[in-house]
Amino acid sequence: MPADAQLAIDLLKELRALTSDEHGAQRVAWTPMWLKARAWFQQKLNTLPIQHHLDAAGNSWTTLRGESPRTLILGSHLDSVPNGGWLDGALGVVAAFTVITRISAEFHGRPPITIRLVDWADEEGARFGRSLFGSSAFAGTQSIEQDRGRTDAAGTRMEDAVAACGVSIEAIGEARRERQEAAAYLELHIEQGPVLEKLGLPLGVVLGTKGVERHAITFNGQEAHSGSTPMKTRRDALAAAAKLALAVRPIAMQHPDAVSTVGSLKTYPGIVTAVVGRCEVALDQRDLDPAILGSMYAEAQEKSRQFAEEEGCTVEWSRIWNIAPVPFHPELIQLCEQAINETAGQSHRLPSGPLHDAAEVSRAGIPTVMMFVQSLRGISHNRIEDTREDHLRLAVDAFDRLASKTIAWIAARP
Amino acid sequence: MPADAQLAIDLLKELRALTSDEHGAQRVAWTPMWLKARAWFQQKLNTLPIQHHLDAAGNSWTTLRGESPRTLILGSHLDSVPNGGWLDGALGVVAAFTVITRISAEFHGRPPITIRLVDWADEEGARFGRSLFGSSAFAGTQSIEQDRGRTDAAGTRMEDAVAACGVSIEAIGEARRERQEAAAYLELHIEQGPVLEKLGLPLGVVLGTKGVERHAITFNGQEAHSGSTPMKTRRDALAAAAKLALAVRPIAMQHPDAVSTVGSLKTYPGIVTAVVGRCEVALDQRDLDPAILGSMYAEAQEKSRQFAEEEGCTVEWSRIWNIAPVPFHPELIQLCEQAINETAGQSHRLPSGPLHDAAEVSRAGIPTVMMFVQSLRGISHNRIEDTREDHLRLAVDAFDRLASKTIAWIAARP
Repeated sequence: MPADAQLAIDLLKELRALTSDEHGAQRVAWTPMWLKARAWFQQKLNTLPIQHHLDAAGNSWTTLRGESPRTLILGSHLDSVPNGGWLDGALGVVAAFTVITRISAEFHGRPPITIRLVDWADEEGARFGRSLFGSSAFAGTQSIEQDRGRTDAAGTRMEDAVAACGVSIEAIGEARRERQEAAAYLELHIEQGPVLEKLGLPLGVVLGTKGVERHAITFNGQEAHSGSTPMKTRRDALAAAAKLALAVRPIAMQHPDAVSTVGSLKTYPGIVTAVVGRCEVALDQRDLDPAILGSMYAEAQEKSRQFAEEEGCTVEWSRIWNIAPVPFHPELIQLCEQAINETAGQSHRLPSGPLHDAAEVSRAGIPTVMMFVQSLRGISHNRIEDTREDHLRLAVDAFDRLASKTIAWIAARP
Repeated sequence: MPADAQLAIDLLKELRALTSDEHGAQRVAWTPMWLKARAWFQQKLNTLPIQHHLDAAGNSWTTLRGESPRTLILGSHLDSVPNGGWLDGALGVVAAFTVITRISAEFHGRPPITIRLVDWADEEGARFGRSLFGSSAFAGTQSIEQDRGRTDAAGTRMEDAVAACGVSIEAIGEARRERQEAAAYLELHIEQGPVLEKLGLPLGVVLGTKGVERHAITFNGQEAHSGSTPMKTRRDALAAAAKLALAVRPIAMQHPDAVSTVGSLKTYPGIVTAVVGRCEVALDQRDLDPAILGSMYAEAQEKSRQFAEEEGCTVEWSRIWNIAPVPFHPELIQLCEQAINETAGQSHRLPSGPLHDAAEVSRAGIPTVMMFVQSLRGISHNRIEDTREDHLRLAVDAFDRLASKTIAWIAARP
């Protein structure tokens, strides 16, 4: 008997009714609404023969002990962005619940290996600007010193907000203890992009999460009067920035999955009567291949210097953030593809542009794969985020099959 | 005996000491510092055999009656932007003072025609966003209804601020009475641009003020996730706007004196993780030839539609403001050129990109010309605004010659 896909959909709707308003989901981590979502979910879990605890970083662990301590972890996150969608994160957690329920029933509460469900703490980083909080603590890639200083828009310290939820910022590194015996990690998530919809496919296997190079680029020219400064004597910082905003696109389009985005461009003084003296650009480049990502970054830098020179400007780069690409496990990718083919008839391999907790788990050396289900219009982080219900059912079915295949794979490994 | 150029420089320095702080000139119209500057200037004028009055719009008129009521007007403005320079406006007023002093002495207080000095009220529009206030009231081009509703950054109504300086907003149209008997208007001003400095020339004759087409252009695309949205499916509003910001430049450069500026570009949501869904651009196009200005505007519109289509966006235009080009009087242009050639050996003809009170006077049908003196580095509206003192002396000498030539020209007209 497979996992109960209709139950997953019903639970998602129940959660939406409980934790959304007219603007969308409001399960922002470290807020009362998030705690309410977690308490609701715990009630559902308590029907199973499980053990439950929060780890040192606030990740919520539910353990179904098996014959072997070797562990398959299934998970995602219940937290949302403000005004978020009903599926981002919650789908993966609820699907994992139906799968662990199915496994528990099938093996009468004692599967051959241990199965754990994790609800990661603060995947979105919506309140304090620190995404993947819980999974990075698990992976040992977090910095307590950096996180300690964070504040939200109201000035509340992250340290105090997590303490109110029972987490001591000093101790979050102890979450890495949860890695013991972890043999594989599986996560189901909505795609949050348009690729599967364009292909007319419900499901895809995720090859890994793209690496990110994120930089602030400042062009300095010369502020000058719009009326009295001849075109040929201008040092227009916007012109250099506009050239760069356009040039980063063909740089990315040389590669099939690369993306490159100027999401913010600011002009100073920013008045219609003055040539732009300073222009600040925020650039985000992503690819799954570190060599491609590196060459894209280098090409953009070279172009920026060329454009600065052409426009009589100077240019400075400042790294905002970066992360290396995280490829998922090749054998689990194959298992995921098989599960999708058996369920939906056809699969598609794609990298993930957005980051996910699965990337942190994979960085910790645990074999990992993700499955994507189609997002309507590719829209996420918005109350209109949606997925067809028949696709959600296929997703739960395929994820359930993937879990079974992975249990067998773990059991067969030395 | 020519006008006393050294006196003009000394007075400008005295005014600077009286009305500037470490950030520059602070003679913003309708403020106590502006009234202080005007009171100081009135003291200087009172040494002459003149009549003085404020007109209904707050313009300050000083009249040296001549044999004939036909009148030559000399003027500029004492008001400045906040943190302004020492010469913008003040040079023209002070030079006019030395010229009227010279004429009064030469003709023993009774020149052949009437000479008037005008200090226009609120040329800059720095406080209420309404430039050329007094001269447009004189010219009859102002709108009381529009001006009534204006407020400054602190919420003070323009109507109340001008009333505190003795001006009733209802009555400003009566300033047009000052046009009676006006036979010509002359204004000396710093260039506020780099053209004369690049040519190595101290002085130039102004052909007129460029017309301006000023528009807000909004591109609407589709906000989308920077990581998950493939390059080919994007509808990037910034890309369309960047193309336009670059395209308006060659459109202007087809014409020798045209300028075209995107001074402000705003991205929404303006975050590094989202493709820009909406982009707002402010475009300012200027030329002295109305046909050229019209074709530049039409070309920019056409390009914007092309770029919107290429990027899967829509585009909307909204006029912020426009004004037709104002050519100066051809015979006065010739007289001005002669005066410059006689004083400095070489002249140059150039249009003015910035607007000036002279444009309003010319629109009222009064023969008008302006003389420009070189601005160091082309910089104005800034405390570092400056002009070489030998150039200031040449400017006063040439302007004095121009006044004499214009008196003769008026006397010779039927």
